[in-house]
Amino acid sequence: MTTALRVTVWNEFRHERSNPAVGRIYPEGVHETLAAPLREAGHQVRTATLDEPAHGLGGAVLDETDVLLWWGHQAHAEVADEIVLRIQARVLEGMGLIALHSAHFSKIFKRLMGTSCDLKWRVADERERLWVVAPGHPIVAGLPERIDLEREEMYGEHFDIPAPEELVLVSWFQGGEVFRSGCCFRRGAGRIFYVRPGHETYPTYHQPLIQKVIGNAVAWAAPVDAARPRRGRSESPEPIG
Amino acid sequence: MTTALRVTVWNEFRHERSNPAVGRIYPEGVHETLAAPLREAGHQVRTATLDEPAHGLGGAVLDETDVLLWWGHQAHAEVADEIVLRIQARVLEGMGLIALHSAHFSKIFKRLMGTSCDLKWRVADERERLWVVAPGHPIVAGLPERIDLEREEMYGEHFDIPAPEELVLVSWFQGGEVFRSGCCFRRGAGRIFYVRPGHETYPTYHQPLIQKVIGNAVAWAAPVDAARPRRGRSESPEPIG
Amino acid sequence: MTTALRVTVWNEFRHERSNPAVGRIYPEGVHETLAAPLREAGHQVRTATLDEPAHGLGGAVLDETDVLLWWGHQAHAEVADEIVLRIQARVLEGMGLIALHSAHFSKIFKRLMGTSCDLKWRVADERERLWVVAPGHPIVAGLPERIDLEREEMYGEHFDIPAPEELVLVSWFQGGEVFRSGCCFRRGAGRIFYVRPGHETYPTYHQPLIQKVIGNAVAWAAPVDAARPRRGRSESPEPIG
Amino acid sequence: MTTALRVTVWNEFRHERSNPAVGRIYPEGVHETLAAPLREAGHQVRTATLDEPAHGLGGAVLDETDVLLWWGHQAHAEVADEIVLRIQARVLEGMGLIALHSAHFSKIFKRLMGTSCDLKWRVADERERLWVVAPGHPIVAGLPERIDLEREEMYGEHFDIPAPEELVLVSWFQGGEVFRSGCCFRRGAGRIFYVRPGHETYPTYHQPLIQKVIGNAVAWAAPVDAARPRRGRSESPEPIG
Repeated sequence: MTTALRVTVWNEFRHERSNPAVGRIYPEGVHETLAAPLREAGHQVRTATLDEPAHGLGGAVLDETDVLLWWGHQAHAEVADEIVLRIQARVLEGMGLIALHSAHFSKIFKRLMGTSCDLKWRVADERERLWVVAPGHPIVAGLPERIDLEREEMYGEHFDIPAPEELVLVSWFQGGEVFRSGCCFRRGAGRIFYVRPGHETYPTYHQPLIQKVIGNAVAWAAPVDAARPRRGRSESPEPIG
Repeated sequence: MTTALRVTVWNEFRHERSNPAVGRIYPEGVHETLAAPLREAGHQVRTATLDEPAHGLGGAVLDETDVLLWWGHQAHAEVADEIVLRIQARVLEGMGLIALHSAHFSKIFKRLMGTSCDLKWRVADERERLWVVAPGHPIVAGLPERIDLEREEMYGEHFDIPAPEELVLVSWFQGGEVFRSGCCFRRGAGRIFYVRPGHETYPTYHQPLIQKVIGNAVAWAAPVDAARPRRGRSESPEPIG
Repeated sequence: MTTALRVTVWNEFRHERSNPAVGRIYPEGVHETLAAPLREAGHQVRTATLDEPAHGLGGAVLDETDVLLWWGHQAHAEVADEIVLRIQARVLEGMGLIALHSAHFSKIFKRLMGTSCDLKWRVADERERLWVVAPGHPIVAGLPERIDLEREEMYGEHFDIPAPEELVLVSWFQGGEVFRSGCCFRRGAGRIFYVRPGHETYPTYHQPLIQKVIGNAVAWAAPVDAARPRRGRSESPEPIG
Repeated sequence: MTTALRVTVWNEFRHERSNPAVGRIYPEGVHETLAAPLREAGHQVRTATLDEPAHGLGGAVLDETDVLLWWGHQAHAEVADEIVLRIQARVLEGMGLIALHSAHFSKIFKRLMGTSCDLKWRVADERERLWVVAPGHPIVAGLPERIDLEREEMYGEHFDIPAPEELVLVSWFQGGEVFRSGCCFRRGAGRIFYVRPGHETYPTYHQPLIQKVIGNAVAWAAPVDAARPRRGRSESPEPIG
């Protein structure tokens, strides 16, 4: 039923190799845990990581990507500006982008938002409850009205993003904060979804409901086969004068 | 590729029978011209008209409708309030609604908008050009950047609707006006698309590009299989006190 | 510095007279507690209540009102439809409307929204924290980043409203829910602000920060002196044909 | 009645000195023509131009600016990146920005939008009609429902910007195009207004109605005195565990 898409899952892939606690949760890396359910859904999935040449995004990879997932945290600054500009160009052409958790501070997300993307945070093993505030949105298809995560990092408002064009999920945290956790944006012909959970020291991406949100977001962010608008100096369709 | 949907095309069906000029353009009624390409696309389409019992929307018709198209003009007042309330309830539950042209003044559209839905108009055989302002939106998939209609009625701003959640098409008219012609709204779990062209004295719904817009809108407005939110008095998921 | 506005505070004024606990908190009625800081700010404030003739909104009252505040709860159904239609017409002309707490279920708010406006609720003496998600919005001028209320009724998502055009406040509740608590809408030439707190058994409207939000909302919702758009049949500014 | 604001009008100031036709229309430069009505309205206005040291924006100028107007065209690339970053930071803190006409391609506007900001254009001495699509918006206070400009450059859709948070004006062009001509955005605590007209070879900024739009936009974009949100690692207001 789902259209098969060409999906690229990008991961910084540092924590998993340097922190044994993270490595135990994501032994093949966050990217493989994210890729597995997307492969099962029938998508054509490849992965790419920071330390590969061109961060794994060289050659035709971006041109052949319908939807790009992005997880990064401690090494945002190491991502080459040239790659960031190519990703931005592809999004404006129609490629979907799913920015995951700490990708709020990635170069590509900040460039597409135009804001600082700063927020509050705390790692305190606290409960998070994600409430659906847009029932009927394709990204929450098949979900209950709330997703509970027993332990997650807290992200709190004010989250310095442009107002999302569609706000889908809002998080409650045990410590007293709220957060706009599922946010849709359109830039050029491309669609962007920011989804909050996924701190590396918790098994969040093994959670079936979180996998469901991400799978739905991939389908929602798929490029639409539309005429590319002509721009620049243009003849008038009507006679003038 | 398209999911088959249960579509109901509702038409006032008065002009076609009282005005021979309209009858020549739409001999089986506007509803049949609208229904034909949707049937070809594989949808399960039925039609309903004002003068049928319960306006053709009685029994289980609405419950078994995924997307409802609505064309009305001179007899808005004859639509029973009880049916209007049932349509509204179904939209809030997730049924899609495509409001066509003069349906801007229908009871159901005004009820869902909360505004007067008033506008400027003029019938002067003038050119309309509909420009895509949201390339990448599923409703403009496969379309060129502009649709030209040689002769249409003019509708002009200010169109008294709430700001559309997504503005997809803006019309230019030969006489000097502009109009927000393709407008997306969400109400409850349902999606609403207003699309401007379609005055009964012009063959607009025979135009393949207009049929394409409507077909895309039907797919976009399809209900999402989501949990119905629980409402009313609720126990707390967290202990209090 | 603030422009003096003609403000009408409408209150159902039933709980205060039938429930001694409420009467102790609001001895003159919720309307007088709401009116006092608006008078201090220099506005020209009158009050109106359900049991007055025409609910206190007859004659020229609505025509002479720049911003209307509305508090109702148990007697929504007793508000005359004719008055509701007149309020709606005035909002479309530019009058501001501040819908307070249980006014989410008032006839006028539901009519302007086009949705059920339903939600979750619970009275359990729990903490509410309202977080600012739109710093820089005039409605949060002079406020801290968060307002804490020691005891309030809970309202929880999904709140069945159209997506707010600007989302200003999001509430956290001790029991585990979140809520879109400060929501801006525009309908016609008028502005509407929904603000959540204010259950009658708690002294919420005596809280200076809540008074600040309401005072800011009144200023934000003031009518703008704009040309009324011409509608109906219109001559073309450009020659046709 | 208007609050006096500290306004800085920035202009590239090259066309006026190199093209005698432009110099005749704006003998003191576009900036002085823009500044004059703002001074008359009681604002504290200074001007700054590209060829001054630090483009006239060094020292405390930006810190002491409430609203910045920006006109640039042929020399966008000469604006120093460091200044662009400082302007962005000030907008996120709350400074208003009015981007005028060809400033759609300025570094600062593109950075705040995250998109290409590309469009169609044509210089053909054609008529433009700007229609108000948001009556009741403060930016159109005191305006008629339409502004006519006898001769202007054409800008046409698709204009590659994020969907404006409020769309206020839509242009009709004689040659057959439409354009979203008055667009509101919020970034961080700051407000941005893009306003289309103002090609240097036409006397557009001498037009009283265009001056009115710009004056209203300056008032609308004024910073709000709000608490700056705390960000980064945060203690929980509620006890955890």
